[in-house]
Amino acid sequence: MNSKENILIIGAGLCGSLLALRLAQRGYNVSVYEKRPDLRKINISAGRSINLAFSDRGNKAMKLVGIQDKVKALCIPMYGRMIHDRKGQTFQSNYSGRDHEFINSISRDALNALLLNEAEAHKNVTLYFNSKCKLVDFENTTALFIDYNTKAEFSKTANLIIATDGAGSVMRKSYYLGKKFLFSFSQNYLTHGYKELSILPAQNGDYKTNKNALHIWPRGSFMLIALPNLDGSFTVTLFLSYNQGEYHFNNLTTPEAVRVFFKKEFPDALKLMPNLEEEFFKNPTSPLGTIKCSPWHYKGNTLLMGDAAHAIVPFYGQGMNASFEDVVEFDTILNTHKGHWQSVFKAYEATRKKDTDAIADLAIDNFYEMRDHVANPVFKEKRKLEMALEKAFPNAYSSKYSLVTFNETIGYKEAMIKGRAQDKAILNLLTNNKLDLEGDLKIVLQKVKQETEAILNEDTVAGLNN
Amino acid sequence: MNSKENILIIGAGLCGSLLALRLAQRGYNVSVYEKRPDLRKINISAGRSINLAFSDRGNKAMKLVGIQDKVKALCIPMYGRMIHDRKGQTFQSNYSGRDHEFINSISRDALNALLLNEAEAHKNVTLYFNSKCKLVDFENTTALFIDYNTKAEFSKTANLIIATDGAGSVMRKSYYLGKKFLFSFSQNYLTHGYKELSILPAQNGDYKTNKNALHIWPRGSFMLIALPNLDGSFTVTLFLSYNQGEYHFNNLTTPEAVRVFFKKEFPDALKLMPNLEEEFFKNPTSPLGTIKCSPWHYKGNTLLMGDAAHAIVPFYGQGMNASFEDVVEFDTILNTHKGHWQSVFKAYEATRKKDTDAIADLAIDNFYEMRDHVANPVFKEKRKLEMALEKAFPNAYSSKYSLVTFNETIGYKEAMIKGRAQDKAILNLLTNNKLDLEGDLKIVLQKVKQETEAILNEDTVAGLNN
Repeated sequence: MNSKENILIIGAGLCGSLLALRLAQRGYNVSVYEKRPDLRKINISAGRSINLAFSDRGNKAMKLVGIQDKVKALCIPMYGRMIHDRKGQTFQSNYSGRDHEFINSISRDALNALLLNEAEAHKNVTLYFNSKCKLVDFENTTALFIDYNTKAEFSKTANLIIATDGAGSVMRKSYYLGKKFLFSFSQNYLTHGYKELSILPAQNGDYKTNKNALHIWPRGSFMLIALPNLDGSFTVTLFLSYNQGEYHFNNLTTPEAVRVFFKKEFPDALKLMPNLEEEFFKNPTSPLGTIKCSPWHYKGNTLLMGDAAHAIVPFYGQGMNASFEDVVEFDTILNTHKGHWQSVFKAYEATRKKDTDAIADLAIDNFYEMRDHVANPVFKEKRKLEMALEKAFPNAYSSKYSLVTFNETIGYKEAMIKGRAQDKAILNLLTNNKLDLEGDLKIVLQKVKQETEAILNEDTVAGLNN
Repeated sequence: MNSKENILIIGAGLCGSLLALRLAQRGYNVSVYEKRPDLRKINISAGRSINLAFSDRGNKAMKLVGIQDKVKALCIPMYGRMIHDRKGQTFQSNYSGRDHEFINSISRDALNALLLNEAEAHKNVTLYFNSKCKLVDFENTTALFIDYNTKAEFSKTANLIIATDGAGSVMRKSYYLGKKFLFSFSQNYLTHGYKELSILPAQNGDYKTNKNALHIWPRGSFMLIALPNLDGSFTVTLFLSYNQGEYHFNNLTTPEAVRVFFKKEFPDALKLMPNLEEEFFKNPTSPLGTIKCSPWHYKGNTLLMGDAAHAIVPFYGQGMNASFEDVVEFDTILNTHKGHWQSVFKAYEATRKKDTDAIADLAIDNFYEMRDHVANPVFKEKRKLEMALEKAFPNAYSSKYSLVTFNETIGYKEAMIKGRAQDKAILNLLTNNKLDLEGDLKIVLQKVKQETEAILNEDTVAGLNN
């Protein structure tokens, strides 16, 4: 490990461009190869989500590289979920009882462009676009590319290759197909897919609905959500089964069927979406998958990072944040670990994988919570209580959502174990009428904490918290 | 679906030969293609476990096809675990407090040969050996083979192809690489591998140690086990990390190192294994993996079954039993379902997959239980109590192990949910000294049942039993 080494990064998306920036700040010579054209020059949003939820774990990474203020300018705060029922009536469920805790809607392209600019400002970073990786010869730390412009193939060798080439990672596929070592791997698809639609700005450029919330139309087995963009529009996403239920992607085959579906299920949204049918048939339907694998590295030469190592479903709003946090964790290992790259990679996976596994599972949980539970009476009661607890005891109580989203100093796994126990405690106390919600909130907090501790202890005795 | 249809089965292992037999009994024309030579003519055990645990779920399938008595003649009952400590001292922990509940050691080859003979006795079954499947064109229900003798390639089309070609299934690989549909897939390896060794019979042909037990030498992070064979020998299996701990497969590179390791950790076993070093370096080290996937079928033309659909680690002794139970479940669907093959396949996966997922997870749990917990005082106390409860209340109490192994009328998932809650209840009651083990056992049972119910209810409220 010395800072004169050449590091090749595959993929200049959010994770790759941040990693390039950070490694450049540390003095390495960094080359980044990206299959797409330069998004700062050409609009290439197709096939990827337009805006994303940005929160504290992601911001931790922005602070590390010193661009948190530039990123803040791109953010639209969302303080809670705005739930829309079938009659178009709404209620807001905040993300936290603490005013300074909120998530943000941010443009993927704007953020990626900022990161590319910041990386490229370092003379030890070179970016290559239109260069599609075909395979990685990980025994020889060599990647084979094809230049999309000239169609020429070329290969590059480096001291180190880090693949941040996303859920469809070519290097991960090389690991899998290479069969040189035991490679644990999973791809798990939900039975649902998603399609992006939009609410355009009003004539005067205003937002057509509250811009400071994440809008949800939960309908049990499917849902619609909307996140604001800086230009006054909202990006709307429909999550729906491919082939089950009365309405599904495979039977919504005509503009009439789509309109009938939206009129019945999302009447208030439909009023804001005059382009619905056109967009519905123009935009792709994309799958929702979770990817896990291990090991993330081979012989100290190659490493997977970001979605390439752990792609997750979008329902916790943590995909980008988790990938950014990868860079922070990797950087921390670089600070403390004076060994070879192989031991750096091992230490990194040893501390990090438990957390990316946890957020993958939490994101699946939230799929069910968002489309269904948010409209359920006990769940609503629980959220109301949690908001009250966070407001009254800002230093003594954090919900699972807060632990995951706003407590960036603890890992996802710790947040998951504590948060799940707390959820279980509150749901059981509420169901058994053991909380006097009109009485002293201090006593309620005490009971919740006791019950949570009891659950954690029981799980530990049963060996369930490992 | 009519009984004149041609069904092509890939793989004549335990699951494939049983399936061929059952489908022949139902009147279908069945062709079975197997890559290996006919094991009834040539000894080909290399690379697969020599003996296996056979229990009630497997026997349910033998009853279905009417060969339970023939199979019984191949069985050596094992009534419990015989635990060996480092000093060679042993204690036995029975599998059940009911005398009629035990598992059996059975020879893979003898059982497979029996199934092949029974299948071949039907004139509507044809077996082809030395025929290795290279890929399956699942759109056209056609499989491509290579004849190992002539090296000639040939393809076969059928009304239906069922792949029972094991953990390395070629058809599953065709599903994965074909990318014609969303195929969820996982392969997860343990950090441990295994190596088969043996204890040969005594000079007079006797068994050198108790033949009616499954012997375990649990050592925390690794273990040795032994199962009896009909010829007086035991097949011994070492489960050990590839590269972690003081001793691991990657550093046991000399006969001396192997002997030192066994002398320190398994001294009593070493005395019975004069061929240890020779076998250690002659026999392969094999990985331990879990495979899950979905869907198991495509368009009513092709179906995965047995290990091809759900390979598991061997620690619950349920791999073969689960594959045999697949055939029973499939047969039940055929009885009740008068639809197309596609709806048969869907119904089969809908009822079956939750159970094969459960046994996969239970088998991983048991890895930790066997190598570690069996020697742990609280665990021992729990097992002792469970034996007492099963003995005193044979109709009112079954441990998790009994639910999984001896209660073949409930599915693995139900056994897992109830069994885990029960384990948690007992461990917590014991740890908190809430059971008067010297007092009335009826009261103990009542407390265990109450606590188990409470745990199940709490999990249901929290949405954890789905």
